[in-house]
Amino acid sequence: MPSLEDIRSAAAALQGRIHRTPMLESSALDAIFGGRLTLKAELFQKTGSFKVRGLLTKTLRLTAEERERGVITVSAGNAAGALAWAARDAGVPATVVMAKTAVPAKIEAARAYGAQVELVEGDLIGAYEAIRDERKLTGVHPFDDLDVITGHGSLGLELLEDRPDLDTVLVPVGGGGLISGVALAVKLLKPGIQVIGIEPETADVVSRSLEAGEPQKLPTAKSIADGLAAPVCGTHNFGIIQQYVDQVVRVSEDAIVEATKLAMSRTKLALEPAAAAPFAALLEDKIELTGLTASVVSGGNLDVRGIQFPGR
Amino acid sequence: MPSLEDIRSAAAALQGRIHRTPMLESSALDAIFGGRLTLKAELFQKTGSFKVRGLLTKTLRLTAEERERGVITVSAGNAAGALAWAARDAGVPATVVMAKTAVPAKIEAARAYGAQVELVEGDLIGAYEAIRDERKLTGVHPFDDLDVITGHGSLGLELLEDRPDLDTVLVPVGGGGLISGVALAVKLLKPGIQVIGIEPETADVVSRSLEAGEPQKLPTAKSIADGLAAPVCGTHNFGIIQQYVDQVVRVSEDAIVEATKLAMSRTKLALEPAAAAPFAALLEDKIELTGLTASVVSGGNLDVRGIQFPGR
Repeated sequence: MPSLEDIRSAAAALQGRIHRTPMLESSALDAIFGGRLTLKAELFQKTGSFKVRGLLTKTLRLTAEERERGVITVSAGNAAGALAWAARDAGVPATVVMAKTAVPAKIEAARAYGAQVELVEGDLIGAYEAIRDERKLTGVHPFDDLDVITGHGSLGLELLEDRPDLDTVLVPVGGGGLISGVALAVKLLKPGIQVIGIEPETADVVSRSLEAGEPQKLPTAKSIADGLAAPVCGTHNFGIIQQYVDQVVRVSEDAIVEATKLAMSRTKLALEPAAAAPFAALLEDKIELTGLTASVVSGGNLDVRGIQFPGR
Repeated sequence: MPSLEDIRSAAAALQGRIHRTPMLESSALDAIFGGRLTLKAELFQKTGSFKVRGLLTKTLRLTAEERERGVITVSAGNAAGALAWAARDAGVPATVVMAKTAVPAKIEAARAYGAQVELVEGDLIGAYEAIRDERKLTGVHPFDDLDVITGHGSLGLELLEDRPDLDTVLVPVGGGGLISGVALAVKLLKPGIQVIGIEPETADVVSRSLEAGEPQKLPTAKSIADGLAAPVCGTHNFGIIQQYVDQVVRVSEDAIVEATKLAMSRTKLALEPAAAAPFAALLEDKIELTGLTASVVSGGNLDVRGIQFPGR
């Protein structure tokens, strides 16, 4: 399991290469939810999501031989763009395996950052493993990887550097990459802090894994919060979540939609549905706010095709 | 015409009551438009738009007798919320006249800030004048007022305080309130700066007024950029625009829609269509970027009802 020292060293390596994203306040949201929120505006991060933290950390730690071969990952979207960007930054060729149904802007982003994009139908993981083995590429798991987790931990360090008085952290949950890094960092620094994960009812692999006592797989995982629709909980992630996360709650698809619109309207941040999951939990009274609570606005790669302009 | 001293005094009175909004950069937009842009993120302003600058200035300058009677304005939306907010801040009763077709969130905002909202069909200005006279209220024109213009000038001061090296300022144009205040401030401080206004083809009253040499009225003014659909160019605004604005260009509705989506996707700001008008002009090659250019992201009161989530 990564140590605080590992996470600090990853954060130091990221400095200057990625953005230090701001913590923002919204008196409107505080009034609506009856609490004190601070938003980690990670949607302003390079490539529009937190994913670059872990994937750049991973890329920077590859051996010369691994870099030479080129990297490959599999992603619902944000990890693809992030690995493509990180690999370009580190001068490594990148291939990304994505679903044909991925948000087109996320596919375009991965291409724009110079990655070879392989669009597949059906079994994403199977396709990823086949391409990786056939082309002898260096596989990079988008979340079940200790270097990736360590890199995501840098976000946890920033939370407590900026707000040492934080009582609670709310983190959207897909396969468990972000929350395992963040929980590790903040709990090691401040054991009394509460870490709560939020995942869609329709893609609740982490909740099911916790209930089962071991990492589970879902036959399908679909959500309006495409960034959270992971069908598996990572093994490394599971161990950390079990030890360091206080609670994982499920939210409905309706609440995610409502929360995305509400948060956009009140904060003026163009967040993607995944990033609004914590607000969905507040809307559904799954969480009660006590003390100062940080909500991680994990990404902003919204599918803008879907914006209709009334009156047009 | 307001002097630089007037504008400075208005800015001093606003300080601490409204936000000092940030200037943001977007390397993605710079690459797309081939220039150097800095965005005045006025969507983060109190009430979600620049309008509070002028309307709070006006409210603060009313006589005791005028305050006592209560204020009234007429608005496509943002001025209503802004006057309601400003009046509440100053302890003055407020009435706002809005079109039944106004963006519902803008109507709700005015009510939430405690204003009496009068929804009318057809002749907005006529209804406003009738209610004002009948109830003996203090009329506040949303843009054709020297105090309002002076207050909006505070935004111009901030532009040059933050970026003294600015070469050009791009400003969305409705009835001419914002651009007259901003142009006055920046030109008085830095005569060589260029000020360019952008208005919808379908609501081009300022362009038509400049062409005719006097303020014009349009029989109707509709635009997807509801914040810019003013049917009249203010008289005070016209004089200032004629003297201080270098150019006003028209943009198509299609370009406004495209620009809103593009800007949202690249900057992660949930801007309203009015605020994207300058980007529409860049998309349509109506403007060429030279030097450092500020674009005023005038508001973020997007109609979130219109956001559809693909895959749902």
